[in-house]
Amino acid sequence: MPYQSIQQLLKTAPVGTVVTVKGWVRTKRESKNAVFIALNDGSTINTIQAVAQPDQLSDDLLRLITTGACLSVTGELVESQGSGQAVELKISDVLVYGPADPDKYPLQPKRHSLEFLREIAHLRPRTNTFSAILRVRHALAFAVHKYFNDNGFYYLNTPIITASDAEGAGEMFRVTTLDATKPPLTEEGKVDYSQDFFGRETNLTVSGQLEGELGAMALGKIYTFGPTFRAENSNTTRHLAEFWMIEPEMAFHELEDNMALAEDFVKTVIRYALDNCADDLAFLDNRLKEEEKTKKKEEQSELSLLEKLRFVVDNEFQKLTYTDAIEILLNSKPAKKGQFQYEVSWGVDLQSEHERYLVEKHFKKPVILTNYPRAIKAFYMKQDDEPATNDRGQVFGPTVRAMDVLFPGIGEIIGGSQREDNYDKLVARMEEVGIEPDALWWYLDTRRFGSAPHAGFGLGFERLVLFVTGMGNIRDVIPFPRAPKQAEF
Amino acid sequence: MPYQSIQQLLKTAPVGTVVTVKGWVRTKRESKNAVFIALNDGSTINTIQAVAQPDQLSDDLLRLITTGACLSVTGELVESQGSGQAVELKISDVLVYGPADPDKYPLQPKRHSLEFLREIAHLRPRTNTFSAILRVRHALAFAVHKYFNDNGFYYLNTPIITASDAEGAGEMFRVTTLDATKPPLTEEGKVDYSQDFFGRETNLTVSGQLEGELGAMALGKIYTFGPTFRAENSNTTRHLAEFWMIEPEMAFHELEDNMALAEDFVKTVIRYALDNCADDLAFLDNRLKEEEKTKKKEEQSELSLLEKLRFVVDNEFQKLTYTDAIEILLNSKPAKKGQFQYEVSWGVDLQSEHERYLVEKHFKKPVILTNYPRAIKAFYMKQDDEPATNDRGQVFGPTVRAMDVLFPGIGEIIGGSQREDNYDKLVARMEEVGIEPDALWWYLDTRRFGSAPHAGFGLGFERLVLFVTGMGNIRDVIPFPRAPKQAEF
Repeated sequence: MPYQSIQQLLKTAPVGTVVTVKGWVRTKRESKNAVFIALNDGSTINTIQAVAQPDQLSDDLLRLITTGACLSVTGELVESQGSGQAVELKISDVLVYGPADPDKYPLQPKRHSLEFLREIAHLRPRTNTFSAILRVRHALAFAVHKYFNDNGFYYLNTPIITASDAEGAGEMFRVTTLDATKPPLTEEGKVDYSQDFFGRETNLTVSGQLEGELGAMALGKIYTFGPTFRAENSNTTRHLAEFWMIEPEMAFHELEDNMALAEDFVKTVIRYALDNCADDLAFLDNRLKEEEKTKKKEEQSELSLLEKLRFVVDNEFQKLTYTDAIEILLNSKPAKKGQFQYEVSWGVDLQSEHERYLVEKHFKKPVILTNYPRAIKAFYMKQDDEPATNDRGQVFGPTVRAMDVLFPGIGEIIGGSQREDNYDKLVARMEEVGIEPDALWWYLDTRRFGSAPHAGFGLGFERLVLFVTGMGNIRDVIPFPRAPKQAEF
Repeated sequence: MPYQSIQQLLKTAPVGTVVTVKGWVRTKRESKNAVFIALNDGSTINTIQAVAQPDQLSDDLLRLITTGACLSVTGELVESQGSGQAVELKISDVLVYGPADPDKYPLQPKRHSLEFLREIAHLRPRTNTFSAILRVRHALAFAVHKYFNDNGFYYLNTPIITASDAEGAGEMFRVTTLDATKPPLTEEGKVDYSQDFFGRETNLTVSGQLEGELGAMALGKIYTFGPTFRAENSNTTRHLAEFWMIEPEMAFHELEDNMALAEDFVKTVIRYALDNCADDLAFLDNRLKEEEKTKKKEEQSELSLLEKLRFVVDNEFQKLTYTDAIEILLNSKPAKKGQFQYEVSWGVDLQSEHERYLVEKHFKKPVILTNYPRAIKAFYMKQDDEPATNDRGQVFGPTVRAMDVLFPGIGEIIGGSQREDNYDKLVARMEEVGIEPDALWWYLDTRRFGSAPHAGFGLGFERLVLFVTGMGNIRDVIPFPRAPKQAEF
C-alpha cells in the first residue's frame, strides 16, 4: 500500500499512530496558535485536518500550501480539539508535491456556479459536489453489475459501431474513415460505402437491445451496460449526445415478470446507494435543500432528496394500463381546468406534465404504465390479443405489452416491453412501419429458430444518477458531457 | 420467479419435486423404452435430461422437438438412471414455444468450424463453446468491477467521442453528422467542421487514459472499463476495430506500486474465474486439449489451459528492466543461432518472439519489463533521472518508467507507466514528439495545479478473455466482432 486513503483513516481512526496522508488542500487557516490545513484525497467527501504549530512550517513552505496544492503530510493521529471530526493530524512533516498558484487556480474556496464548473469539467471532480456525484455514480454502476450478477444475468457487450438502427428512428452519428473532403462516389454520385472501413455505412449504436435479444435467446438472461448515442440537436437539461444505457433482456419473461424485475432492480440499486454512500448523499441532500431555499415556496419540493430515495425504496410501485391512466388524466383537475399544456386523449404519447401528475399528484408513488397503443411504440413490442377497452366498455385501438416506469421529478426512467416472439406478426409490423425485414435477417432468426416469450427494458444510467443525486442537469452527472457543440476534454 | 434456471436446479437438485424447465433442445434421442431430450437454457454448460415414455408424446409433438427448438417441460425430478448427471426430469407435460426446422437451422449437433460460427455470430452463443466463453467473459468483467470496488477505486466513464488523440498515434474513426456527399467546406476547401454536430472534428476514443488521469487527480483512484477503437486495417487474430479496455489510474502511485497493483489485479480476476467458472473452464480446457491433439507434437502446449491459469495465479511475476531483458536476449540461444526473425539491440521495440522467449523459455513465468527506452514509448510516461546502464557499465539512452506485463502465449497483456508529473518536462516532451500542448491544455492543468506522482495501466479486456478461455482468435471472445469489412449484426 503506497498510502492509506482518508476514507480508510477516518474509518479506523487509530489514535496515537503516525500516518502519512496524501491529498489536496481544500482550505488553509492560520491563527495565532496553529495552522490548520484541510486535506481531501477524493476517497471521501470528508477532509482530514492537519495541524501545525505557527513557527513549525517555514514561510516559503506555507506560501506553497494553498487551496488546490497537493501535499504529503506525516504526523500523529490525535483526538480532535475542534468539533466536526474525531481525529486530526499533528503534523511532523510536510512535502509539497505540486503547488496551485492562487492567482491562476480556478477552484478557490467559494461558491462556483454549476455553469462555470461545466466549463472546467477537467477540474470539477475536485469539488465536493462533483466528487460526491462521481462516487455515487460509481456506487450505482457497481450496484447494477452486482444486481445482475447475483441474479444469474450475464453481461453482454453489444456492438458500439453498428450497421443497424434498433429503433427505426433516432438521428445517428456516422462512423467512417473515408476521406472527408472527397469521398469515393458510386456511379450514381452517392458515397461509395463499400470502400469504407467496414465495407458499408456504419453508425454509433442507439441501443443494444436487438443484439441483447440474441444473447437472451442463447444465455437466458443477459444485460448490457455501455455507451449509446443520439445525434439529436437538443440542448436540454435532460439530453446527452453520449450516455450510458443498461438493457437487461430475459428469455421466458413476460410483461408481468418484466415489471417485477424492473421494480426490484431499481429499488435494489437505490438501496445500495443509500447503504453505501451515506456521507455523499447527506452532502447532496443538504446541497439540494440550500438550492430549494432559493425557489418560491410553491415550487419547492415536498420531500428532501433522502426522503425521496427512501420513498421509492419503501413503496410498491403503482401498476396500471395506459388506458386506465388516460381515464384518470381525463378526470383530473388540471384537465378539467385546462391546465395541461398538451391535451389528453387515448392514443397520444403522454407528456412529462401528464406523467408527473400521475406520479406526484395522483398516486404519490412511482408508477408503471403498461399496454400502450401500438401506434406510438416500437415495432418489436409484443402485440396484445385484444384492443384496449375502458370500464364503460368503450373500445380503443390495438395495444402492445410495453411498460414505462415513471419516477417523481424525472418522468420516464425505464422503458421496456415483452417482445413480439411470433415471426409472422413481427414481420408484418416491420413492413407496416417501413423497416426492411431482410436488413434484420439475424434478428428475425431468433423467431425462426427456437423462439420463446422474452422481455427486457432499458434504463438511461444518467437519469438514474440524476434522480439519486438530486441534480437538475444531466450534464452534471456524467464526467465529460457530450452535447451539440460540446466535445471538449 | 418466472422459472428456475437449469444451473439453479442442478445445484439444489430437489429430487421428488415437480419443476418446470425452459430451454432449447440440444439433442433428442429415441429408444425403444424412452425418449431422451437434452435441454439447455444458457445458464450453465450443463444440460438437463428430460425423459418421456415412448408413447407419451404424440408424433406431431415429437416432430417439433428437434435440435434448437425451445420448450417448456414440466415433470418430476428423479435420480438419473444413466451416468453423467445426478438428476433427470420425468416428463409430465411439454410445450413447444418455438420449433427449429432441422432443414434450415444451422446449428445441428455436429462439430462446426469456428470460421463458420463467426458468420452466424447471432446464433453461436447457443453452442457450448461460445456460451462458455461468454459466461467466462461475464465472470471476468464482474471480477474487474469487484476488484476495483473492493480496493477503493471509482469507476469513471471517460468519453467515447473525443476531439483528442491520447497516444498521438493510432488511426481513428471519424464521428460526424455532416452530409457525406457534399460536406460544407471552408474557404480553403477543407471540410468545415465548425458546422459538424460538435462544432469540431471528432473521433472515437483510442484510450480513456488522459481523462482518467483527470479523475485520479481528484478522486485518488479511478478505473475505466469501456469500448475503445482502432481503425487499423489489420486482419489478424489479435486485433479488433472495437474492443473493451480497462484503465486504472492512481494518484500517489509510483512505478513499483503500479507493478504490484497490476500483478495483484490480474491474479485476482483470474482466480475469480477459476473459482466461479469451474464447469465452463473444464469444458474449455478439454476443447483446447482436443485442438492441441491436431497439432504437431513440438507445437503442442506444455501446459493445459487450467494448468496455465493456475500457473499465473500461483507464481510471482518476474520483474526486470528492459535493459536487463536485452542482455538476456542477446545472450540467448535463439539470438546466437540467428533464430529470431527480428534482431535485438538496445532501443528496439521487442517483438512477440522476444517477449515469448523471455516468458515461456527463459523465466517460465509472467514477466514485467520496466524502464523502456524513452524513444519507443508515449510522451506522458515519467522520465527516469539517469540513462540506462548494463552490468558492465555500458551506458544507453534515456528511459521512462514504463511497464509491460507479458503473458505466455499472449505476449503483452498490460501496458502502463508512472506518468510524467513535471509540467516542464511533459511540455518539452510533447513538443519533441510534435504534440501541440495547447490542444491538451486541460491535461496539462493537472500538472499546473496540485500535481502529484501518479501511475496507471491499460488492459485490453479481450486479451484477458483470450488468455483465460484458451481461444486462438480474438474474434471468438467478443460477441459481435468489428474488423475491416465486418460490421454485421
